[in-house]
Amino acid sequence: MTRPILWTSTHTSGTIVHQMAAASGLDIDVRFISLRQGEHKTADYLAINPKGEVAALQLPGAGVTITEIPAMALWLAEAAPASGLLPIDPLGRAKGMEWLAWCHFRMANTFTLAFQAKRLTGGDEAAAAALRATATTRARAALVFAEAQLAKQSNGTILGTTQVSAADIFLAAILRFAGFLAVPTDDLTHLTALGTKVAAVPAIAAAIAREQEIG
Amino acid sequence: MTRPILWTSTHTSGTIVHQMAAASGLDIDVRFISLRQGEHKTADYLAINPKGEVAALQLPGAGVTITEIPAMALWLAEAAPASGLLPIDPLGRAKGMEWLAWCHFRMANTFTLAFQAKRLTGGDEAAAAALRATATTRARAALVFAEAQLAKQSNGTILGTTQVSAADIFLAAILRFAGFLAVPTDDLTHLTALGTKVAAVPAIAAAIAREQEIG
Ligand SMILES: N[C@@H](CCC(=O)N[C@@H](CS)C(=O)NCC(=O)O)C(=O)O
Ligand SMILES: N[C@@H](CCC(=O)N[C@@H](CS)C(=O)NCC(=O)O)C(=O)O
Repeated sequence: MTRPILWTSTHTSGTIVHQMAAASGLDIDVRFISLRQGEHKTADYLAINPKGEVAALQLPGAGVTITEIPAMALWLAEAAPASGLLPIDPLGRAKGMEWLAWCHFRMANTFTLAFQAKRLTGGDEAAAAALRATATTRARAALVFAEAQLAKQSNGTILGTTQVSAADIFLAAILRFAGFLAVPTDDLTHLTALGTKVAAVPAIAAAIAREQEIG
Repeated sequence: MTRPILWTSTHTSGTIVHQMAAASGLDIDVRFISLRQGEHKTADYLAINPKGEVAALQLPGAGVTITEIPAMALWLAEAAPASGLLPIDPLGRAKGMEWLAWCHFRMANTFTLAFQAKRLTGGDEAAAAALRATATTRARAALVFAEAQLAKQSNGTILGTTQVSAADIFLAAILRFAGFLAVPTDDLTHLTALGTKVAAVPAIAAAIAREQEIG
């Protein structure tokens, strides 16, 4: 193994890291595994990522794997400083990390909540519906917040950068999650434009096409 | 304003950032506001942090505020590289960020879930109990995972560093949250020792004492 391996799976949060890896321009071996077939719980995979989750970024040499989206984004950004995945100055990098951490936290306390509502409430359908409703309201509030912040920035990016950053990629994904929850987003014109802008970055477009091919 | 201001509140996640700020050794003006009195929703505070949450790190000069624990940790670590809040090499920093992001994500999808169970399920007591039970099971599983990883490290710290890092501070806080949920932790001897180690760092001990004084 001489180049990093990104272990991921289509239709998961791994898509976000796949897009960041593509945008980095680094030579990364992207490998898709099937969660449905339990490939993330095999002994071989658990030896690479003991969390048994995707995504995971396995680095050559040191035998180290990095997980968690904000951390993989940080590693990719520092390995490819010209990519603009994160600004290079400490303040800009901290602001970028703020948005990555915010998206990650919202993913956990809003979207994941809605997607897992039934499991979280022990199978009770009424309880799951109540949880889903709260999560959906919160998802909408989160997007409205992001829209207002984005509207204040230049260049149509969340950090005001000319290049699309890792924070933009994550925000665009959060907007897509909202679609799965039937959260209304038509009025969120800045976020919608950001989603279009992210998807139009050639390397990201290629990553999207590759995932569509795999299905 | 010539030095950073940390806006925080006792008995909140702001405590974690207060401890990181203390461990940084930087000259930071720590200001406590009362959530009970709604001081985080005043126009003045919302101008500093539009999220209306604590903690927030207001920086002098640029008029920039940083929020989200992993991002505040990154800024503090880079402003005080000798503090050991994060390792200085990109790989070590990414591993540190992995743990910060993991703690942050777990806070959102486990502990916050349990603490807000009733609000999240629309007031239904049975549904809240089911949600709390699932969240508590997940909290325990998260701690068991962290314990196993910590057991493999040298120096009794999660990154194997001799200094206590921001990741150690966050992990120790996650262990405290478990206490509020009555999650059994007696068998988690490495995590318990880490909690003791973190609290014994003189600057952190001073921060803890200061919060106890305020109440
Ligand atoms: N906090 C993690 C989330 C990873 C995660 O939840 N991955 C899901 C797919 S979206 C997974 O692998 N689930 C399989 C499982 O937990 O069994 C990150 O930032 O990457
Ligand atoms: N993701 C945020 C969490 C901040 C947060 O939830 N703060 C709580 C206190 S633990 C708060 O200010 N709540 C007041 C409110 O939302 O009204 C972080 O990392 O700092």
